Amino acid sequence: MKALLIESPGDSEVVDLETPVPGKGQTLVKVLACGICGTDYKIFSGETNANYPVVPGHEIAGVVEKSDDFEKGQMVVIDPNRSCGECNFCRKGMPQFCENLQATGVTEPGGFAEYVLVENSQVYPLKNVPVERAVFAEPLSCVLEGVKMIKHGFFDRILIVGAGSIGVIFGLVFRKIFPGAEIVLSEKDEKRAEFVTQTFELRVDEPKGEYDLAVECSGTAEGFKVCFDHVGKGGALLQFSVIAKNRTIDISPFEIYRKEMKILGSYLNPFTMKEAVKIIESGEFLFEKLVTDRLDLNGVREYLSSHKKALMKGIFAP
Amino acid sequence: MKALLIESPGDSEVVDLETPVPGKGQTLVKVLACGICGTDYKIFSGETNANYPVVPGHEIAGVVEKSDDFEKGQMVVIDPNRSCGECNFCRKGMPQFCENLQATGVTEPGGFAEYVLVENSQVYPLKNVPVERAVFAEPLSCVLEGVKMIKHGFFDRILIVGAGSIGVIFGLVFRKIFPGAEIVLSEKDEKRAEFVTQTFELRVDEPKGEYDLAVECSGTAEGFKVCFDHVGKGGALLQFSVIAKNRTIDISPFEIYRKEMKILGSYLNPFTMKEAVKIIESGEFLFEKLVTDRLDLNGVREYLSSHKKALMKGIFAP
Amino acid sequence: MKALLIESPGDSEVVDLETPVPGKGQTLVKVLACGICGTDYKIFSGETNANYPVVPGHEIAGVVEKSDDFEKGQMVVIDPNRSCGECNFCRKGMPQFCENLQATGVTEPGGFAEYVLVENSQVYPLKNVPVERAVFAEPLSCVLEGVKMIKHGFFDRILIVGAGSIGVIFGLVFRKIFPGAEIVLSEKDEKRAEFVTQTFELRVDEPKGEYDLAVECSGTAEGFKVCFDHVGKGGALLQFSVIAKNRTIDISPFEIYRKEMKILGSYLNPFTMKEAVKIIESGEFLFEKLVTDRLDLNGVREYLSSHKKALMKGIFAP
Amino acid sequence: MKALLIESPGDSEVVDLETPVPGKGQTLVKVLACGICGTDYKIFSGETNANYPVVPGHEIAGVVEKSDDFEKGQMVVIDPNRSCGECNFCRKGMPQFCENLQATGVTEPGGFAEYVLVENSQVYPLKNVPVERAVFAEPLSCVLEGVKMIKHGFFDRILIVGAGSIGVIFGLVFRKIFPGAEIVLSEKDEKRAEFVTQTFELRVDEPKGEYDLAVECSGTAEGFKVCFDHVGKGGALLQFSVIAKNRTIDISPFEIYRKEMKILGSYLNPFTMKEAVKIIESGEFLFEKLVTDRLDLNGVREYLSSHKKALMKGIFAP
Ligand SMILES: NC(=O)c1ccc[n+]([C@@H]2O[C@H](COP(=O)([O-])OP(=O)(O)OC[C@H]3O[C@@H](n4cnc5c(N)ncnc54)[C@H](OP(=O)(O)O)[C@@H]3O)[C@@H](O)[C@H]2O)c1
Ligand SMILES: NC(=O)c1ccc[n+]([C@@H]2O[C@H](COP(=O)([O-])OP(=O)(O)OC[C@H]3O[C@@H](n4cnc5c(N)ncnc54)[C@H](OP(=O)(O)O)[C@@H]3O)[C@@H](O)[C@H]2O)c1
Ligand SMILES: NC(=O)c1ccc[n+]([C@@H]2O[C@H](COP(=O)([O-])OP(=O)(O)OC[C@H]3O[C@@H](n4cnc5c(N)ncnc54)[C@H](OP(=O)(O)O)[C@@H]3O)[C@@H](O)[C@H]2O)c1
Ligand SMILES: NC(=O)c1ccc[n+]([C@@H]2O[C@H](COP(=O)([O-])OP(=O)(O)OC[C@H]3O[C@@H](n4cnc5c(N)ncnc54)[C@H](OP(=O)(O)O)[C@@H]3O)[C@@H](O)[C@H]2O)c1
Ligand SMILES: [Zn+2]
Ligand SMILES: [Zn+2]
Ligand SMILES: [Zn+2]
Ligand SMILES: [Zn+2]
Repeated sequence: MKALLIESPGDSEVVDLETPVPGKGQTLVKVLACGICGTDYKIFSGETNANYPVVPGHEIAGVVEKSDDFEKGQMVVIDPNRSCGECNFCRKGMPQFCENLQATGVTEPGGFAEYVLVENSQVYPLKNVPVERAVFAEPLSCVLEGVKMIKHGFFDRILIVGAGSIGVIFGLVFRKIFPGAEIVLSEKDEKRAEFVTQTFELRVDEPKGEYDLAVECSGTAEGFKVCFDHVGKGGALLQFSVIAKNRTIDISPFEIYRKEMKILGSYLNPFTMKEAVKIIESGEFLFEKLVTDRLDLNGVREYLSSHKKALMKGIFAP
Repeated sequence: MKALLIESPGDSEVVDLETPVPGKGQTLVKVLACGICGTDYKIFSGETNANYPVVPGHEIAGVVEKSDDFEKGQMVVIDPNRSCGECNFCRKGMPQFCENLQATGVTEPGGFAEYVLVENSQVYPLKNVPVERAVFAEPLSCVLEGVKMIKHGFFDRILIVGAGSIGVIFGLVFRKIFPGAEIVLSEKDEKRAEFVTQTFELRVDEPKGEYDLAVECSGTAEGFKVCFDHVGKGGALLQFSVIAKNRTIDISPFEIYRKEMKILGSYLNPFTMKEAVKIIESGEFLFEKLVTDRLDLNGVREYLSSHKKALMKGIFAP
Repeated sequence: MKALLIESPGDSEVVDLETPVPGKGQTLVKVLACGICGTDYKIFSGETNANYPVVPGHEIAGVVEKSDDFEKGQMVVIDPNRSCGECNFCRKGMPQFCENLQATGVTEPGGFAEYVLVENSQVYPLKNVPVERAVFAEPLSCVLEGVKMIKHGFFDRILIVGAGSIGVIFGLVFRKIFPGAEIVLSEKDEKRAEFVTQTFELRVDEPKGEYDLAVECSGTAEGFKVCFDHVGKGGALLQFSVIAKNRTIDISPFEIYRKEMKILGSYLNPFTMKEAVKIIESGEFLFEKLVTDRLDLNGVREYLSSHKKALMKGIFAP
Repeated sequence: MKALLIESPGDSEVVDLETPVPGKGQTLVKVLACGICGTDYKIFSGETNANYPVVPGHEIAGVVEKSDDFEKGQMVVIDPNRSCGECNFCRKGMPQFCENLQATGVTEPGGFAEYVLVENSQVYPLKNVPVERAVFAEPLSCVLEGVKMIKHGFFDRILIVGAGSIGVIFGLVFRKIFPGAEIVLSEKDEKRAEFVTQTFELRVDEPKGEYDLAVECSGTAEGFKVCFDHVGKGGALLQFSVIAKNRTIDISPFEIYRKEMKILGSYLNPFTMKEAVKIIESGEFLFEKLVTDRLDLNGVREYLSSHKKALMKGIFAP
């Protein structure tokens, strides 16, 4: 099968690999679409720890090719992460910190290939959904993990910094689950700002005043600062994005105290894939509208290697 | 009556004032003890907004002198804060952010005086308790507010930065409510470190490795950094201390994300006085052992004006 | 002014009363609409403790007539409940259990009158809203209190027993805040079932299988049993309705254990009026469609005394 | 090895079985103690679904005999339950409802034997602890699961119905984690009542008035009723015990509403073994004092078959 292989940081190629054969408890999935995510760029550049050589790609939608559990042809999406169930974090109910975490597209071959092999426990069947919507099940489940941390609250005014596809998914979900809330996305890229405004009728604007909730989705320390400065009394800041490790930012702890701020990190999504699938199936959100760049494996390679950014969301669409 | 009056920042005197007369719904309390707290120093220096001229002192234990609700001679402690019940924060159940907050010893005359006048709703009777333990009801109720924010968790390893009386109260409470937890206090002042170790058998030591919970009680930005750097995966940082507004510190938002850190500010204590009184009455904690410096009004004045720090806790004891 | 006065249980009349004069901190409101609620029937029959003689009516929308805080003509809704701020429950942050609770339309004159007098803290201004939507601010805020108790969860399948206006409001809110959820209302009254299906496109059906969440809104012990029997593993039962005190029902505690059921009572709404107003203003829900019976004071009297039920929701509309 | 085998409900014998040989990822444990629990009686009588023939016993403390992960001689306790990680409940983070749950001593051979074979993930090493304390790690972890559900609250008055070993463990833990709380255990068996009072200085008494928290530990529907009737406003009822399926009880749903009661079922303990081990190791609770009846396998058999109850706690002690 054809696959995009990153031999080592900075060195990638579209190659021919043996198509894997599913063993007991495994499923071979024919890839129909695989989203390109910031993490893929980092695997290419070497900023993220991957098991090189690696086939990247972890936002996978496809159909079952061969499995001892699912029927051939069944449409599925994949939870890329697999915890061990035995380490101390797993046994405390925090598999997101599993000491032996395996991840499709990071430690194991991923979705920028014709086929991908996964454990049955990673497979989520879904029905009646366009592939380009299904491909958002994984990022949506990440977002839902973040949502879980804050949805007990009532938020009058919400700020989302960064209107990439993650910021937009947050915006769409918040618009639904927080009735009456005023939602603002802040975005530096004017083309995106325009796309988001027109396609989703979300409001893109400068942050003004104080917000009950601020979500950092820009992947920048500046974005974190914008969030920090605009959280109001009793408000929450959700640190969702992946900011470069060595980027630091100056804050005043007094503000955390005075406003009884809650700053919450959201890391992995161990428990929300099922919910994501249900929401994807419901048709309440047309996430497929986020897809702007459809690429073959060489296209993906070019985007990763030249650090080219999609207008909104790029996917591998064989 | 005699009272310590701060005319304006930096300018204080022990003066003779008219003893106030309680109106409807009010109670006149004879002060038996009033703790000196960091806030009093800030009122003296002008760092905190007070209604000058002001009699400071808000950690008050005393007996009822005259009241239309409580009997003369009844031992009581005072909740210094009084919210309006009408502003938007009050009506959302967040009186700690009341837009019209009144505070005994800050916006109204406080406890460094022979008598103090308060509304009945601020008065909490208590029984059979040494005055020097009772005087900790208010700081304890602050601590309990902080505890409320985190006590749903299980904490294996706990770090408290700053072993002043607040840090010690946290240590004592945590030792009880988190069975099996390892608790370390970090403290720069060696005399205090020794006092705490010997008097309370708490462990004072350098922070080492990662903690599930870190509580900042030193009032310094460096202390916040120590907490931040030592919080482990899934851990929490409670920002309890009051750090100077303009003191900032550099942090890496990536760490918040990667560890799914929770950073929580704890500001005021609107709902925990009753609980504090119950705990004080139970005799399970001998907070009176914290009192090391007993002062008259001139003594309090001297401490505030020369920024002199008690060995552990200073109180006005008429 | 004209008002509906219940002299004592069972004995009511439309009478002429002195129009009240607002004192300091009070607002006189001209009533534009006042919803009829189950509680009003109970005040009429004597099942609920009221301060007879009493003018009932607590779901009030109107305009300011005279106030020292709000401008004449300002549209407002009223929080009927007023806690004392001094009792032990109030001081623990649970004003819903206030020992001195006052309630407009129960312990004080209410909204079935030309004017109603309230404290300023009970008044919530709102703008640009049809009166017949505004009148749902109070019941909506009750519903939001119930929602607060459960909205941290993810619910796949939701059952609402009783499709009166409360059940419908729950249905509409749930449809929005729980994306992807399957929602079923169970309703005995066929006319209502039809009205609800056609007007709101909510699904009315027999409960089948297990639900993650069941909300009792029928006001009957049978309804509670239906909920109890249909809650699945890890599921929640919200006891929202007011069931006659002496109606009991048989349950098996084993089921609570085995399913780790959560049964939660929702009583009063001390903190959600502001949120309700915001949602009402947003126009996201057209609650006015619930109004089916518009009555004058004599009409209200007739409904209460003959225990006549509205097709969906009856209001006093002068 | 010798083992107590229940061939089928009501039919048991002490037999010689092949000592199992650990495979990859497995550990063979030499049993040092195994507590007798209500469930064992139910497995004997057939009330609980077990995989007959079965060796019961799931409260196991022992030392490692052979393992590819742990050293021979290491003291360990066992988590009897093992979830699949693949079913829908597991993937939603609720392994307590795993559709393929395996349980040592229920679906697999348990601890009433010289040796027991378990998966490595079920093994928890611990150090420096008397065996008779270690044997309480499993029941303690169950209790901690219950505690997790309620420990965010502040409880002034606590009622525990049933002073068996579970009720006592709750009492001891509550006395520590709820400072200042008044705790009452209700117990019918006078010998136990006396034993508990004298050994643990817990208060055994009739329930009087209202409690903020009531925990059902008697295993009876009457006990549930006692709890229900004594829960006060804003209070919680923890349904922890296993009451016979067909035992029902009459309750008034109005009370749930009026008091905003929370009724919470506590079923399994998937995430608390580590915490239990830590607490056991800390030596803060001398649970070993609960052991009153030490039995060999024939003794266990006699207790189970004649439904004989220990004075407090019976264990198999080879
Ligand atoms: N926690 C999780 O589970 C999880 C899961 C998935 C993704 N993520 C992370 O979430 C973040 C967002 O993902 P994405 O796919 O939406 O990323 P993205 O496509 O890079 O979008 C981020 C957007 O933010 C804009 N931006 C940068 N700095 C800004 C600022 N100071 N103010 C306003 N806008 C700013 C960027 O514009 P320019 O390109 O012009 O700079 C870009 O359009 C990433 O860091 C990703 O790694 C986290
Ligand atoms: N949130 C609330 O509701 C609330 C209520 C009450 C009090 N507070 C705040 O809580 C804080 C603690 O109160 P307190 O009365 O215990 O104050 P304190 O007496 O000033 O104690 C702080 C201690 O921390 C030490 N310290 C300073 N920097 C340190 C560092 N980097 N590492 C280790 N130790 C360090 C100080 O030593 P040196 O003196 O040698 O510097 C001092 O002994 C204050 O900021 C106070 O304003 C908050
Ligand atoms: N907790 C709070 O804060 C709060 C606030 C407001 C209201 N409430 C309570 O909420 C409840 C609902 O209010 P509402 O105004 O919607 O009441 P409602 O108009 O009486 O509606 C209840 C509906 O349930 C139906 N019903 C009765 N038994 C049923 C059963 N076993 N299965 C299915 N449907 C059944 C009734 O039909 P029939 O008429 O044919 O019997 C009626 O149509 C009331 O008890 C009210 O007091 C509580
Ligand atoms: N949820 C979980 O994870 C979990 C885990 C472990 C155990 N459990 C359950 O927890 C319960 C307690 O366990 P245990 O080992 O302590 O049981 P136990 O030894 O049977 O103790 C129960 C005690 O309650 C007494 N009692 C019975 N009815 C009473 C009443 N109405 N009022 C006061 N006392 C009454 C019993 O006395 P008599 O013997 O004289 O009747 C007995 O002494 C059991 O149902 C057990 O199955 C649950
Ligand atoms: Zn793991
Ligand atoms: Zn206020
Ligand atoms: Zn009150
Ligand atoms: Zn499972």
